[in-house]
Amino acid sequence: MKIYTSKCRSVLITGANRGLGLQMVRQLLDSQNRPQKIIATARDPAAAKELQELSKSHPNVHVLPLDVTSDSSVDAAAQSVESIVGSDGLNCLINNAAINLASELDTVTRDAMMKTYESNTVAPLFVTKAFLPLLRRAAAEGSGMGIQRAAVINVSSLLGSVQLNWGEGASYKSYAYRASKSALNMVTRCLAVDLEAEKILCVALHPGWVRTDMGGPTAPLSPEESISSVLSVISGLTEKHHGGYVDYTGKSLPW
Amino acid sequence: MKIYTSKCRSVLITGANRGLGLQMVRQLLDSQNRPQKIIATARDPAAAKELQELSKSHPNVHVLPLDVTSDSSVDAAAQSVESIVGSDGLNCLINNAAINLASELDTVTRDAMMKTYESNTVAPLFVTKAFLPLLRRAAAEGSGMGIQRAAVINVSSLLGSVQLNWGEGASYKSYAYRASKSALNMVTRCLAVDLEAEKILCVALHPGWVRTDMGGPTAPLSPEESISSVLSVISGLTEKHHGGYVDYTGKSLPW
Repeated sequence: MKIYTSKCRSVLITGANRGLGLQMVRQLLDSQNRPQKIIATARDPAAAKELQELSKSHPNVHVLPLDVTSDSSVDAAAQSVESIVGSDGLNCLINNAAINLASELDTVTRDAMMKTYESNTVAPLFVTKAFLPLLRRAAAEGSGMGIQRAAVINVSSLLGSVQLNWGEGASYKSYAYRASKSALNMVTRCLAVDLEAEKILCVALHPGWVRTDMGGPTAPLSPEESISSVLSVISGLTEKHHGGYVDYTGKSLPW
Repeated sequence: MKIYTSKCRSVLITGANRGLGLQMVRQLLDSQNRPQKIIATARDPAAAKELQELSKSHPNVHVLPLDVTSDSSVDAAAQSVESIVGSDGLNCLINNAAINLASELDTVTRDAMMKTYESNTVAPLFVTKAFLPLLRRAAAEGSGMGIQRAAVINVSSLLGSVQLNWGEGASYKSYAYRASKSALNMVTRCLAVDLEAEKILCVALHPGWVRTDMGGPTAPLSPEESISSVLSVISGLTEKHHGGYVDYTGKSLPW
């Protein structure tokens, strides 16, 4: 088993009740140098049975309720996380929670556009803002940049690349999802600019097209394949990647 | 005076009550081959005094109420425009209306993010959808692509370029505005993919940094300078520009 997570003491993953978020928790637990504290959040933890079972058998998994679209929920989660991580702060925040509503030209609604933006773009910004004091605490010591110090990983998508939305790359149509992920890439870049001096690494990451509820059954990657690559990429992030847009193989993507 | 608008019979400009939208109306009127029908929309035409005066002295200027964030207002405007343009359809839709709310890392609110997205990203998509029947009517005849046939010009911004938001290019900070314009670029690209077969040209256009209410007094360009360049670029658009992101000099920008 690879050592994905050497030196990263704490990681928080949003939307960890299913799909790639849940798979991240599983594979972080399987890694040799697993983080001391894995904080897995879900809008409704009571309904997240697999996550609850993982936390029963692994005391380093902390399951917390978090509705990323609600300020009061985000603030409450930040308080809970502070009591879990204490003076060490939070090393790695993975903004993974997202939605995808069908929205082709003929079917897209204003409501689908707004709801998708709220969850996929605005929420990662405000979750990051709420956890900034804990990320800053973790970033205050150490050298270089990376998840051993402090990092914000925004789970984006190839579908957020404006440049690649052309020809064959344009076959998947979704105004709401694509626009939200392009905007998330911009938010990531803005955060990278603002947090560089504090040595908090910020990247947008495309996890691949994966056989999850969101990716569908015809996707080429299994969740295991995606997440083993994703965790390898995350563990190798340095200042060279700061403000970048990379895929699960580590390749840089055009905006 | 240059011939900016040869062969473009009708143009509609949103947010034409002030700033660059109003300047477009003025300079279209000054051009030798001005469109036969210039439709200038504003949320509250009664308050748009300069626009009202222009329409009194120029019968080819039609002023219509249009709140781009309201489906019923957009539908009503589309009906009015149909009665103005008739069987010729609409040649050129310029989605110019936009807002900019202060939103740096410490001051940005969820509400500012959502409101800006609603006006700057979602509205241009739904205005375009509402006018598609009239754009399709205009596109049905003719050859090539351009404003002589049918075009959607989304007024974007250099600030929507994720790539250029770095180093000196990152000095202007606005999470809400930047994210909305990146997402508008994606919406423009999606529209270009979907409307290519119908020969409706779609581009994202950066008008420059201009001394308007939005651009502020220290901007390098006067409204006249910006719009004379913008109209020249618009009049020269061809299929080569379809799906692109160009500035007021015609230069292609990185996403």
